[in-house]
Parts: sequence; C-alpha cells; structure tokens
Amino acid sequence: CSAAAQAQSNVTLYGDLDEYLGYIHSSSGAHITGLNDGTSLRSRLGFRGVEDLGAGYQAKFQLESGFNADSGTQADSARFFDRQSWVGINTPVGEFRLGRQNTEIQQIGGAIDYTERTTFGSIVNTFGVPSRYDNDISYKSPRIAGFQGTVHYALAEQPGGGHAQSAIYQLAVDYTNGPYRAGYAGIAAKPAPATAANLATHLDNKVQYHNLYADYDYGQGKVYLAYVRSNNITANASGLTAGTILSNVASPNNLFPGTDANARRYFNVYQVSADYRVAPQLRVGALYGVIKDKSGGDAGAKGGNVGAYYDMSKRTTLYGFANYMKNDANAGFRFSGSAGPSANLAGADINGKGLTGLQAGIIHRF
Amino acid sequence: CSAAAQAQSNVTLYGDLDEYLGYIHSSSGAHITGLNDGTSLRSRLGFRGVEDLGAGYQAKFQLESGFNADSGTQADSARFFDRQSWVGINTPVGEFRLGRQNTEIQQIGGAIDYTERTTFGSIVNTFGVPSRYDNDISYKSPRIAGFQGTVHYALAEQPGGGHAQSAIYQLAVDYTNGPYRAGYAGIAAKPAPATAANLATHLDNKVQYHNLYADYDYGQGKVYLAYVRSNNITANASGLTAGTILSNVASPNNLFPGTDANARRYFNVYQVSADYRVAPQLRVGALYGVIKDKSGGDAGAKGGNVGAYYDMSKRTTLYGFANYMKNDANAGFRFSGSAGPSANLAGADINGKGLTGLQAGIIHRF
Amino acid sequence: CSAAAQAQSNVTLYGDLDEYLGYIHSSSGAHITGLNDGTSLRSRLGFRGVEDLGAGYQAKFQLESGFNADSGTQADSARFFDRQSWVGINTPVGEFRLGRQNTEIQQIGGAIDYTERTTFGSIVNTFGVPSRYDNDISYKSPRIAGFQGTVHYALAEQPGGGHAQSAIYQLAVDYTNGPYRAGYAGIAAKPAPATAANLATHLDNKVQYHNLYADYDYGQGKVYLAYVRSNNITANASGLTAGTILSNVASPNNLFPGTDANARRYFNVYQVSADYRVAPQLRVGALYGVIKDKSGGDAGAKGGNVGAYYDMSKRTTLYGFANYMKNDANAGFRFSGSAGPSANLAGADINGKGLTGLQAGIIHRF
Repeated sequence: CSAAAQAQSNVTLYGDLDEYLGYIHSSSGAHITGLNDGTSLRSRLGFRGVEDLGAGYQAKFQLESGFNADSGTQADSARFFDRQSWVGINTPVGEFRLGRQNTEIQQIGGAIDYTERTTFGSIVNTFGVPSRYDNDISYKSPRIAGFQGTVHYALAEQPGGGHAQSAIYQLAVDYTNGPYRAGYAGIAAKPAPATAANLATHLDNKVQYHNLYADYDYGQGKVYLAYVRSNNITANASGLTAGTILSNVASPNNLFPGTDANARRYFNVYQVSADYRVAPQLRVGALYGVIKDKSGGDAGAKGGNVGAYYDMSKRTTLYGFANYMKNDANAGFRFSGSAGPSANLAGADINGKGLTGLQAGIIHRF
Repeated sequence: CSAAAQAQSNVTLYGDLDEYLGYIHSSSGAHITGLNDGTSLRSRLGFRGVEDLGAGYQAKFQLESGFNADSGTQADSARFFDRQSWVGINTPVGEFRLGRQNTEIQQIGGAIDYTERTTFGSIVNTFGVPSRYDNDISYKSPRIAGFQGTVHYALAEQPGGGHAQSAIYQLAVDYTNGPYRAGYAGIAAKPAPATAANLATHLDNKVQYHNLYADYDYGQGKVYLAYVRSNNITANASGLTAGTILSNVASPNNLFPGTDANARRYFNVYQVSADYRVAPQLRVGALYGVIKDKSGGDAGAKGGNVGAYYDMSKRTTLYGFANYMKNDANAGFRFSGSAGPSANLAGADINGKGLTGLQAGIIHRF
Repeated sequence: CSAAAQAQSNVTLYGDLDEYLGYIHSSSGAHITGLNDGTSLRSRLGFRGVEDLGAGYQAKFQLESGFNADSGTQADSARFFDRQSWVGINTPVGEFRLGRQNTEIQQIGGAIDYTERTTFGSIVNTFGVPSRYDNDISYKSPRIAGFQGTVHYALAEQPGGGHAQSAIYQLAVDYTNGPYRAGYAGIAAKPAPATAANLATHLDNKVQYHNLYADYDYGQGKVYLAYVRSNNITANASGLTAGTILSNVASPNNLFPGTDANARRYFNVYQVSADYRVAPQLRVGALYGVIKDKSGGDAGAKGGNVGAYYDMSKRTTLYGFANYMKNDANAGFRFSGSAGPSANLAGADINGKGLTGLQAGIIHRF
C-alpha cells in the first residue's frame, strides 16, 4: 500500500445519495412532479476521523455537508458543513464535543418510526424537527445498565450579561434492553431579553420540543410508538403551520426575539408504525399519526403511509411510499422527507387541504 | 493496508487543475492579460464510486465540483457539485442515472476537435455548448455493433399539468469502428406556456442544438469534422451574441419563458481540425471554423487556432495556443475555454471586432 | 490494498479543527463569551498531491478550504478554496506556482512568535497580516548556504496598459543556521491609476508591509523577535484601526482605488516572545508587543499574553491563553486568532479601550 494512501488513513470519507421521483396531489386539484433529494437519507458527503490517544481516550471529528443530488446545490447555502462540524474527546467517563452538532431529537430518528422519521408520510417529520445548532457543547455518558444520557448547551453569542439564559438546552436519555428501546429527547430555549423596540410584543415563552419514544423488536420487524409535545410551530409563506419559531440556527448567533405569539400554541403529536421483513432483502411498513392543536385553533393534521424498502446490497436500496395527510382547517403542514421537495405547491393548495404523495427512488451509501 | 484506508475504497477522489496565462487583444486596440482557469479542462474536484451488485448490475455515483484555481472560487456559486451530481444503476441492458448530469453534447467534446472542443480557438466552443441540467433522468444503451444511444429527460418542476412538455430532451447516437467515429448529439426544449403577463411577446419556438461529428484516426493523429445547428444564442451585457437562451440550468426549475425573439434566429457552425503527434510527448494541431447566421443578420464569426500539447507525464501537460476570431458586424462572440477568462474586455471591444488570443499553461490531473 | 484505495494515492486529504471558548472583556465593562474557531490554526480541509516527473522535477498542487468549525460555515463565503488553490512545478532550480497562494508573510508565522503569530495576544497578528492573493505567480529558490528567496507577482487583471504597475509584489528571504533563523518578508502594491471620478482624492501611495524576524533556539525553547512596518491600516465599522487598505484580495481583481488617506499613516510594530518546554508534552510561553503610530495620531496599541500548549498526541493539542491589549486613544485594534471570534464587541467598546481575553480549546490535526 502506498505511503500516500496510508497518509489518508486519518480521514474516512463517507456519505450517500438519495434521489426519488416525487408526486404531490392536493385536494384543491393542484399537483406537481419532481426529481427530489432525500426521501429518507438527505444526500451528504462527510469526513470523519478517530485518533486513539491511549488510556481509553480518543480524539474525534466529523464534518458533514448536505446537498441536493438532483441539482448539486448545497443543502444550506450559508454553511458548507451544515449537518455536522465538531471536534471532541471521548474519555472513559463519556464523550465531549464542540461545534455544530445534530440535536439528540434528530439523532434518534431510527427509534421514532419505520422510515427513520423521514418520508412524506411520517407525521412526526411533517410536524418539524429541530435538527442542529451552532456553538453547541455536548456531553454523552457511557451506556450504563442500558441507560445513556446526553446534554447539550448551545451558546447565544451576545455581548452583555443577560443572554446566557437564552442558550439552547438539550437533554436526552435512551434505554435499550434486548428487543426493547425507549427514551426521551428534548430541547428548550428562552428568547432574547425584550428590547425597547419589541417591548409591546415580547413574550417570555420558552420554545420547547419534547419527544418520547418506545420500540419493540418482534423478530421479523419492529413496532414504534412516538409522542411529541411542542410549541415550535409558526406560519410562513409556505403555509399556516409550515414554519418553526426556533430554527436550526436561531439567527443571529442562536438567539430568537420572542415576539411570535404562536409560541403560546402547543401541539401534541401521536404516531404508531411497524415494519415487517418479508424477505432478507424486502421490508414493508405502515404508519399512522395525528397532530393535535391543543390550543383549540383547529390547526392539526393526521395521516400516514405504507412503504417498502428493497436492499440491492448493504449499501444500495430501492424504495417506494404512498402517503396521505389531511390538514385541519387552519393548518398548513407540508410533506417533507429528509429534505423538502425541490419544488412544491403554493400555500393555498396546502392550507386546510388533503395531500397525497408518492415517492419512488434509490439510496446509495458510500 | 490500514482499515481506515480500506474504508475509503468506496470513494475515489479525482480532479485536475488547469491554469494558464491568457492574453486577449481586440482590433479596437483594447487588450487584457490574466491568470485564468481552464484552457481545456476546467479545474475540478470529484468524488465517484462503483459498487458491484452482482449479476451484471452496479450502483454508481459521481459528484463533481468545478472551481477557478486562480482564485479558489467555485465555478458556480449556487451549486457546489455544479458539474455532476447523480446516482445510477448500470444493468446488462444499459445504464440509468438520476440527477444533475452533463449533456451528451458536452460529453462528446473529445470527438469535436483536437482541443476537446475547448480553448479560445474552438469555434464550436465559442458558439456555446449546453453543458448540463438539473433534475435529469438518462438512459445509455450498451454499445452494440459499434452503436451506442443515449436519451435524457430533465423535468420542469412546475405545479399544474401544462409543463411536462417544457422538459429538456436529449438524444445522442455515437458510432465507433476501428479508426472511425461519428455521431449525433442534440437537445430540444419548449418554453413554458404563455402567461397573461407575457402573452404579447411569447413565442412557441423550441430551443434546439444539433451536433453532428466525424473523426478519423490516421495513426499519427486525428482529423475532426463538426457541424452544429442551433437557435440557442442571444445578446447579453457582454456582447450581441455572447449569451444563451437556454442556460445550463433553465431557471426556475428548468423552465424558460419563451419571450426571447432571438429564438427565431438559427446559426450553422462548421469546423475542421486535425492534430499530429510529433513525438511521444508532443502533439500539435490546427483548427478552422465558421459560424453562419442563417437569418441574414450578419451575426456570424470565423476563426481558428494552432496549438501544442507537451506531456510531462500521463497526468501533467504543458500547452500553448495562438487563436484568432473575427466577429461579423452584428456579432459579439467571445473567446472561452473550458471556463471563461476571469476578467475580460468590454462588449464594445468585442462586438464586430477581430480578436487575437494567446494561452500558455499547465494541466495537472489527479 | 484495494485498487480503489490505490487510485486515491494521488491525493492526500489533510486539515485540522481548532475550537475554543473565548471570553473578551473591555474596559468599558462590555464582555462577550463565544465558541470560536481558530485560536491558532483556523479549521481547514485540504487536498494536496505531488507527482514525480523524474530528473528532479515534480508536479504539485494544493487546495485548502478554511471553515468555522463552530458553525460549519466557510471562512470565505465567496471562495471554497479560500486559503490555497495553486498548481506548480518543482525543478532543480526552484519551484514555480500559479494560483491563489499564501503570502510569504503569512507563511513565516512560525518564525514570528511562540503562538505561530496567532492567538488574541500576538500583537503582530492583531495589527493585521496580508495573507493571500488571487492570480499569484511565485518562484521559490532552493535553500543555498542557509538562504532561501521567494518572489510573488499577483496580476491586476484589468483591460488596458496602465494597470500592470498595480500588481501586488512580494519578496522574501529566509536564513537558517543551526539554532538561528532570521529573515524578511514584504509586500508592496500601487493603487489603480486615478480616474476622472476619484481624481480629487486619489493618492499615489503604495501600500506596504515589511516584516523582519529573528529566532534563537536555546534547546528548551525559542526566543522570537519581530518587527513590522506598514501603512496597511484603515478604519472600518468595527473600529478606528480594525481594517486593512489592501485586503486578502484587492477587489476587483487585485486592484485598489488609492483613495484612502490612511495610506499616509505608517505604523511600526515591535514584538518579543519566548517559550519553554516544561515537559515533553507541555510548552509555556509569553509575549509582549507594541504598535506605534508613527504619524503621531495616537493610534497605536500595546499588549501581550501568556499561554500553554499541552500535546495529547502529535495530532491533538489542548491550549490556554490569557491576553491583554490596550488601544491608544484613537486606535481600535481587535483581538483576533487565526480567525476572528464569531461574535464580537461593538466598536465603541474597542476604540481607545483596554481588552482582556481568555482562550481555552483544542486543536486536532488530520
């Protein structure tokens, strides 16, 4: 083996491409067909490494860039390593990381439903998931008696003393025991202090997202239960409930103003799903979920999907999904996968409408 | 060989750097000197992989990012993998690909002229080549009795039913037989349907680009013939004929409005070139071509070049070219290589002018 | 070793992540805490290769992309390979390179002070360093009798004949002899010719940066002396002396207008530092420097730091620094590392103020 190839052994390249033909039909009659990225595993390119420091210590890093394989564009035009960008030290008493990191909520997608909480049909995915934050410091414990805990603290980088409380906090506990898995992952953030300019509209409400889950592996497949409670939903140009208050980075520097009255509206999300391995290469599943608007504003939704994965190899999978969702009168939730469709219907064809979605595509991991 | 290096064997990194000193002199007297990227092989960094799935099937992907080696800027600030971003399955009956792909016209550059249809002097290159599109689905047949066929369909991702006809279509046939090669590669796209706002100026004209070519390898070199017919030329701020109607991505989502009256103007391009291998490391060549404005608008051009390639190794080549082009009275064609010069003359020094260009540089492939 | 891994041996991936918790306190009372990138080795990802051409010749390239590990953003949103992007030929009589290259001033950071001329406390770093330019052509001699010389010429890519004199020139000589090292690295650039629009305010003053340095390795550490003379300082929104006249790329195309009257103001910078290796893994150091405003405008500053590096391995280092700087009444110099802090104090908390800075973090090289 050449010296140059050896020199590369500090870095592992990895990633995947996930592209699908997607069709969305609204009960308004509007429809759209597109070649989209990321039914369930957003296309990405990553660089990662582990250095053994001895005595149970390791230095680690990971840099991960999402992109749209249908167009070659970056997932986040402002961040090249938009998905992960961190350096850390693993120790005998747990792992510490610094940088842009996935939330624990995002990380446990595989425990949420049979689609790894992606595809158009996953109601938890449609509701919206806080995925990652800048300036994030995390600690993950070793797994002890089946339990593993994680905490995150993402700095609000602001001058002055009143902003430390506006940091973004995360807490997660995951429990595994043979065929059983269960846990909690949550996030909470307080808005920036009121300013003279926004005093009249400023709210003190924390934005919160709480996620409980439980899985059972029955041998030929799994059953997944998930529950979410959150007030992190707002309106945007795409629909009445198509946006989030606390985005994947709260601009600027992890700080949100606290002036969105939607933070007073809580939603509960309930979802059940299961899959079944028909053959070594073929897995089928079904999912049903409900978003309930606890404020009584009739801004919930319900829906589900059926789907199948066919493994051409460990690295290459074909898949197909048929999905349906019905928005309540004042809701504008949209289908999303691991990434949103590259073109979509207008808000008027989403708000209060029923949506049918078909997805057929390929994932290739490398 | 270390495990980590093995883990990387799913991905191959490749690319090149091509930089040259370029000098352009206009018959107006204006001139400019620059360190430019891409006389003939635009600098790029790529990631590609092939996975054997058995039974004659393979999963494949390719991600390719163009950049300007003189400044470190991306070739396309909006796309990181601007050149290629696709995943595909090769089967015993042909290869299927999904994503952003090179056009077949772009792919057959090596059959068009001795400069691989780049350098300032290539008249076919100067005329402008539709190079690649988003949301593209392609099928390439196996080569049978010397013939290989390819079709592409790039979706116009628009809501509603009237837009499927606005997709971008490609067809290509390539034939090889010993020292002979010949073929056709073409593209056609219909504009978006008329809207209330553009009803008065909307045309139904398809944008088309048809390319015929024939080569003969006489042992010490090759002779190349090329013919292009197209209406894909328009004016822009850089010159009377410096732009294209249907760009490398028709914005938004592969859709152009059909309001450019230049689509009524057809051009024919004729070009002949040849090269001769003087020594194992040294190849020289010459080229001559004409752009004819078939609408009688006197917007054609003619020109050619002489040049030499010196191979320091299989991967590293030095080159030099002397190029000349004369724009007709109403033409503003510009010298271009695999990428345009990083700084250029103003339109007034191009329109109707004669241009002399010198290029000297290096290509290093990795 | 697999064929695919062999195919990669033309390219070596390398880079580092450097993240730290930074705290800045102004004598105004304002303060800020952040997770920042690049105390001393800005996070980066690079691709480089060397091809042996025989007879003492080599083809080489290097592509290097800086990024902020705390957020995943690129260091330069306009350039992917913002740090280095060049191709070159090494010959028995020296090395020639074309493209975006580090300045010689930037390259000799390791000879300037014990922090490699980074960290908040390095006064030479705080003063500002011209780091790299586009369209740069360089030649580096072999080292002969301890001496090595380098010249750079970065083209001002402008039409017409008057601009060649506006190119950016560099000259450097480095001398090593056992434990001694000394040298000079400098840069000079003349502004663009006056235009009708800026005739009244146009100056002919060259922007210059001259850097002398001398080091002595006393066995357990080194002593470093550095002297800088430059007029490349101007005001910007961040402070009275927080900007440079000739930036890392002089826009557009390496050309600056010559209308900034600050080019008449020269500064001298004097700095001394030393380090001591306490143990094989632990190195400590201290630094003191002064910026003198030779125009008498009271726009200088002075300060220093103490710090320590602890090597967990050859590739992974923990570090900590305590830094102080006092701006003169009309100065607004700011702490900077290899990259600036991701959030910072307002200009009013910098101009004329005393600044205390703490840094604690990790560098992991790969």
